[in-house]
Amino acid sequence: MTGEELTQLGRSVQAPASPDEAVLERVPNGNPDLDFLARFTCPEFTALCPVTGQPDFAHLVIDYVPDRWLVESKSLKLYLAAFRNEGCFHEDTTLRIARRIVAAVAPRWLRIGGYWYPRGGIPIDVFWQSGPPPAGLWLPDQGVPPYRGRG
Amino acid sequence: MTGEELTQLGRSVQAPASPDEAVLERVPNGNPDLDFLARFTCPEFTALCPVTGQPDFAHLVIDYVPDRWLVESKSLKLYLAAFRNEGCFHEDTTLRIARRIVAAVAPRWLRIGGYWYPRGGIPIDVFWQSGPPPAGLWLPDQGVPPYRGRG
Amino acid sequence: MTGEELTQLGRSVQAPASPDEAVLERVPNGNPDLDFLARFTCPEFTALCPVTGQPDFAHLVIDYVPDRWLVESKSLKLYLAAFRNEGCFHEDTTLRIARRIVAAVAPRWLRIGGYWYPRGGIPIDVFWQSGPPPAGLWLPDQGVPPYRGRG
Amino acid sequence: MTGEELTQLGRSVQAPASPDEAVLERVPNGNPDLDFLARFTCPEFTALCPVTGQPDFAHLVIDYVPDRWLVESKSLKLYLAAFRNEGCFHEDTTLRIARRIVAAVAPRWLRIGGYWYPRGGIPIDVFWQSGPPPAGLWLPDQGVPPYRGRG
Amino acid sequence: MTGEELTQLGRSVQAPASPDEAVLERVPNGNPDLDFLARFTCPEFTALCPVTGQPDFAHLVIDYVPDRWLVESKSLKLYLAAFRNEGCFHEDTTLRIARRIVAAVAPRWLRIGGYWYPRGGIPIDVFWQSGPPPAGLWLPDQGVPPYRGRG
Amino acid sequence: MTGEELTQLGRSVQAPASPDEAVLERVPNGNPDLDFLARFTCPEFTALCPVTGQPDFAHLVIDYVPDRWLVESKSLKLYLAAFRNEGCFHEDTTLRIARRIVAAVAPRWLRIGGYWYPRGGIPIDVFWQSGPPPAGLWLPDQGVPPYRGRG
Amino acid sequence: MTGEELTQLGRSVQAPASPDEAVLERVPNGNPDLDFLARFTCPEFTALCPVTGQPDFAHLVIDYVPDRWLVESKSLKLYLAAFRNEGCFHEDTTLRIARRIVAAVAPRWLRIGGYWYPRGGIPIDVFWQSGPPPAGLWLPDQGVPPYRGRG
Amino acid sequence: MTGEELTQLGRSVQAPASPDEAVLERVPNGNPDLDFLARFTCPEFTALCPVTGQPDFAHLVIDYVPDRWLVESKSLKLYLAAFRNEGCFHEDTTLRIARRIVAAVAPRWLRIGGYWYPRGGIPIDVFWQSGPPPAGLWLPDQGVPPYRGRG
Amino acid sequence: MTGEELTQLGRSVQAPASPDEAVLERVPNGNPDLDFLARFTCPEFTALCPVTGQPDFAHLVIDYVPDRWLVESKSLKLYLAAFRNEGCFHEDTTLRIARRIVAAVAPRWLRIGGYWYPRGGIPIDVFWQSGPPPAGLWLPDQGVPPYRGRG
Amino acid sequence: MTGEELTQLGRSVQAPASPDEAVLERVPNGNPDLDFLARFTCPEFTALCPVTGQPDFAHLVIDYVPDRWLVESKSLKLYLAAFRNEGCFHEDTTLRIARRIVAAVAPRWLRIGGYWYPRGGIPIDVFWQSGPPPAGLWLPDQGVPPYRGRG
Ligand SMILES: [Ca+2]
Ligand SMILES: [Ca+2]
Ligand SMILES: [Ca+2]
Ligand SMILES: [Ca+2]
Ligand SMILES: [Ca+2]
Ligand SMILES: [Ca+2]
Ligand SMILES: [Ca+2]
Ligand SMILES: [Ca+2]
Ligand SMILES: [Ca+2]
Ligand SMILES: [Ca+2]
Ligand SMILES: [Ca+2]
Ligand SMILES: [Ca+2]
Ligand SMILES: [Ca+2]
Ligand SMILES: [Ca+2]
Ligand SMILES: [Ca+2]
Ligand SMILES: [Ca+2]
Repeated sequence: MTGEELTQLGRSVQAPASPDEAVLERVPNGNPDLDFLARFTCPEFTALCPVTGQPDFAHLVIDYVPDRWLVESKSLKLYLAAFRNEGCFHEDTTLRIARRIVAAVAPRWLRIGGYWYPRGGIPIDVFWQSGPPPAGLWLPDQGVPPYRGRG
Repeated sequence: MTGEELTQLGRSVQAPASPDEAVLERVPNGNPDLDFLARFTCPEFTALCPVTGQPDFAHLVIDYVPDRWLVESKSLKLYLAAFRNEGCFHEDTTLRIARRIVAAVAPRWLRIGGYWYPRGGIPIDVFWQSGPPPAGLWLPDQGVPPYRGRG
Repeated sequence: MTGEELTQLGRSVQAPASPDEAVLERVPNGNPDLDFLARFTCPEFTALCPVTGQPDFAHLVIDYVPDRWLVESKSLKLYLAAFRNEGCFHEDTTLRIARRIVAAVAPRWLRIGGYWYPRGGIPIDVFWQSGPPPAGLWLPDQGVPPYRGRG
Repeated sequence: MTGEELTQLGRSVQAPASPDEAVLERVPNGNPDLDFLARFTCPEFTALCPVTGQPDFAHLVIDYVPDRWLVESKSLKLYLAAFRNEGCFHEDTTLRIARRIVAAVAPRWLRIGGYWYPRGGIPIDVFWQSGPPPAGLWLPDQGVPPYRGRG
Repeated sequence: MTGEELTQLGRSVQAPASPDEAVLERVPNGNPDLDFLARFTCPEFTALCPVTGQPDFAHLVIDYVPDRWLVESKSLKLYLAAFRNEGCFHEDTTLRIARRIVAAVAPRWLRIGGYWYPRGGIPIDVFWQSGPPPAGLWLPDQGVPPYRGRG
Repeated sequence: MTGEELTQLGRSVQAPASPDEAVLERVPNGNPDLDFLARFTCPEFTALCPVTGQPDFAHLVIDYVPDRWLVESKSLKLYLAAFRNEGCFHEDTTLRIARRIVAAVAPRWLRIGGYWYPRGGIPIDVFWQSGPPPAGLWLPDQGVPPYRGRG
Repeated sequence: MTGEELTQLGRSVQAPASPDEAVLERVPNGNPDLDFLARFTCPEFTALCPVTGQPDFAHLVIDYVPDRWLVESKSLKLYLAAFRNEGCFHEDTTLRIARRIVAAVAPRWLRIGGYWYPRGGIPIDVFWQSGPPPAGLWLPDQGVPPYRGRG
Repeated sequence: MTGEELTQLGRSVQAPASPDEAVLERVPNGNPDLDFLARFTCPEFTALCPVTGQPDFAHLVIDYVPDRWLVESKSLKLYLAAFRNEGCFHEDTTLRIARRIVAAVAPRWLRIGGYWYPRGGIPIDVFWQSGPPPAGLWLPDQGVPPYRGRG
Repeated sequence: MTGEELTQLGRSVQAPASPDEAVLERVPNGNPDLDFLARFTCPEFTALCPVTGQPDFAHLVIDYVPDRWLVESKSLKLYLAAFRNEGCFHEDTTLRIARRIVAAVAPRWLRIGGYWYPRGGIPIDVFWQSGPPPAGLWLPDQGVPPYRGRG
Repeated sequence: MTGEELTQLGRSVQAPASPDEAVLERVPNGNPDLDFLARFTCPEFTALCPVTGQPDFAHLVIDYVPDRWLVESKSLKLYLAAFRNEGCFHEDTTLRIARRIVAAVAPRWLRIGGYWYPRGGIPIDVFWQSGPPPAGLWLPDQGVPPYRGRG
């Protein structure tokens, strides 16, 4: 399983300065005859609020059905880390990540759940999928517990 | 992403005296090409019982699919806070909030779950959606745990 | 929102001596244009075993879609409390409560979950709904945890 | 609600020596006009491994839709207890119990979940239902938590 | 292990009409050389509010260190069931049960936790022990989860 | 069990306009010979931020050992509800409630846990007790789960 | 690490017919210079009620500090399995197991928690330790969740 | 229930040196007239990273509907244990196991969930099923909790 | 309650560029006569690995007993956010934060729990307190769940 | 913070062939003036059964109070991974790891919890500490949930 032009896997790589500069790499899917789901859970996401400049945090879960390519996971990690100094809104950020992965690996299907930490007492979750799931796909709940407040 | 006539975002705003006086504002949806779900979780809701004048409490979860507009979240917070001195019944209050958001942002779809604290040992939950969810929408459970009593 | 002949709401009322003597009251549904679900959670239900006369306990959850009437919740509480000295079987009791509410408020749809405390090591749960749920209704899981035994 | 030839209910009964000797009794269903689900949770099941003679344990959950008859629960308890000295495999035992109940009460529908304690680090669960559930039946998850190992 | 004058064990017994009429029986402690703890968990307790006559519910946990006698558990069950039509306050009821058991079996030590269902949104828990636990006794937490409200 | 000058119990009472105007009443302790703990759990507390005027929410748990008096629970509920339009800081409010109850019933011992909903991503909890617990008192954990954020 | 006269380890062994016939074996403690705790968790225990002959079930947790000998775990399993056709009371059974292990391996210290499945709605737990724990021992909670009933 | 050429069941068997050398055995399905689901939960899986040679860990859950054959569970355990020194990627390993079982027992249907321990902060889950589940099959959630990070 | 030289509270403030540049402010303790505990829960902490430059994440809980001063919470938030581009080790960072707060407000006592997200499969937690807790202080567990891996 | 002769940190290192060949390295403790606790959680531990050669699994938690040295975490990971082909008993392995760390970094205090996956239905946990914890140390529970079996 070798990617086309892997530049980051197995090397010490500088963190990219922004999501646009990050290189989201791919490796060939060794099982293209199967419709399977891969899930990435990313509990360590942070970006900046575009209005106040204060840090925002989220727990992200990304589900996709690979076609010809798999997402190379180290490059995904670096891509997500590149939002560290990027300002954008919760809805936009969540969808932007989804669009970028779709562009990079052209999956048969993808969905993203963005579970944002509360601001002003009210957290926002954002859920999107690229279309109806492929027929016959097995697609478990993401199962992230709801926000609870206290008590 | 700029709202049409935002009067509250980024300013110190007086809490509105009642829900009707509150201004529920909106900002343009930057991703109108996508059917995505946004979820607000509001664990800090309180109103008054119209019969006894005693405070009532609820945990609210609002899911919607934006069309041209997003709900501006600070104005949502102020709108919900404006129920603090408003008297109304559990079923009515839950549905009233839903109707108001529908009126304000004309979403493609919306649902609300109102999880009320028990009175007389028996809590009431209220669940409503504006119609069948859009085809192809990803719509996770709200996942709020059931009321348990003790033990 | 006023009931037709409310005799119990806002007054100090004698507990009815049996379910048949209890008056299950109703108030007009202020939102008859909407198909919404109301859920009552009743963790404090007790009746008597018709064979041994020993007390039985249950956790009940009632979901319904109001048509013209809402269940008046204080009268529901008194109705359920009236089973205190009534002997009947788990399956019968659960369904009897459902039939009574259906008769009282003629809902568009109703379901009841009766989660009975174990006798002889084996608890019984009883689940019934009045028909397929109305199209487009949002109907969350009752989510009551399964019986566990020990450990 | 009286069974046809109840021989065990309300009496002190000898535990049957084997499942085949146990008498699984029934009582008339007092609500034959309704499609309802009854769930038995049996956390105290034990049998013997047919190869080693060592004890096996399981947590069983049985869901059924009665037709003319209900399962008499004390006789169910005695029937299950009769497996105590019976040797059989996990898959076979689970299905054998289901077949026996189907034969005894001819339900409209039945399913059984057998959640077996681990042997060799790998527990087996067995799930079977007698056919697609009746249309319009309300059928909640059994909700038994997955096996976890440690940590 | 035989009690002195057991009148209820292994017989079909009428439920006593009040706690004072109930007979709390005892059996000899077969292990008087050991300081051990026995815990009864009683999730099915109900009494009446002395002011309103409405039913109250509680989850009770009783821990004791037997001296010469064990509490006979069937008589305990009947004693607790006899509160069904008894009116008294949460604090008083919890302590009354403790005093009665102390009087009946003269344990080396006893404690009771009364976890009452909420009234007016605020549940009361009552905790009492008869003195400092005997030295060297193993005394685990009762571990009852705190009241949570909703969300 | 009668209070000295109960003015609110069993009557329909106007909600007091502020904590200072609220009357925290007491009833005689019927078990003054025992050191027992009474716990009130109050998941429905709200006050105002003295700086912004925005609503604050908390889950409060109050443990005390009565001496001659019990806290009358309806008056406690009204007293806490009277903070609804009161502005004060988290630390101050929590301690003020404790001081008031101490003044009203002179308990042998008291502690309060104030679990405040997060502001700015960082919730504050406040814990105070009036001194070391009485020797021989049984004092279980309050057991409120820690704040979790998301994921 | 070899036992003195191991007759069961690594062989196919007949299940002993009773606890008294079972052989509880031991192996030398390879770390006699250290005070450490070993915990066995036994969720698969069953015996018979001496009065009714019906099966009883328990979840057992055994903690001990070895001196010269370790409990050989296969023989422990066979010993516990030998209670399958033994009649005895909850308190007695729990303590009998503890006494037997103490006799077999003469540990520096031992405790046992017996968490019995409910009979008549009220489960019994039995807790015993052989004396105060050795100074400097690390002794975590057994952490078994309390019995919950339903809901 | 006898397999065709069982070489491992009931014997002491050398662990196979690699998955390809392992023999995945089968026994006749004694209930071929029924569409039932068997679930294996394997919390003890480990393999090697093909790039770094470091160990990887996973929790695996395998669901299948037997046709003529059951998976012989001891041989499954040995087959899975044979990955201990095998290097391969998360996606490939999960699917390879599924393909092997399909080849061995030709089930009517199969699915596998591979829940891998995190690397670089981001765990990968892999989900595949061999096609749409058989009509009328009962197929519960695997219910494995999502990865949480900390807090 | 006014701080001495508050420069950040109630204003829009630039995020400080590093922890050393951040100003940790204080306000007078309005209850200096009481030994109470204040707990800050900070689930949104991030810093950089000093070796690789990759982001690290932690969940922090800080408990302290104020003396003359309270920590001003907005300045705490800004101080913690200033670690965003700071490289340091888990142990050092956790202790550095504790030392800084001690220096700023000279509390009677302080402790910090740093719960770091896993690196290499093994998370590190760091726990420190400034000395034995003040006598008579009430000091609940931080109760953060342990790291679990998968399954 | 530099170790004395670090040979593995920041390099690609061959996994050591056995625990004895592994090099457990150390780095200077930058905070020797403080008694703090560092906790490593290791959910990915595996070794071999010395009798059968079958794999064993454990979840390990190691708490220590550094003196002059910290455990270098990458070398700890490699050391633990080196047990992969090592045969030893649960009690011995757990204590051997503890002794090795004590030898390597001479901590002020250390404890280890070994939570082993079940064999024969009965898991073993092993707990040891090097002596009474240092006075004034803050030492939270490890909080690992108890083994549950099924249901
Ligand atoms: Ca699901
Ligand atoms: Ca809440
Ligand atoms: Ca309960
Ligand atoms: Ca659901
Ligand atoms: Ca169990
Ligand atoms: Ca479900
Ligand atoms: Ca695990
Ligand atoms: Ca404890
Ligand atoms: Ca505790
Ligand atoms: Ca998280
Ligand atoms: Ca503990
Ligand atoms: Ca309940
Ligand atoms: Ca977190
Ligand atoms: Ca504690
Ligand atoms: Ca603790
Ligand atoms: Ca169980």
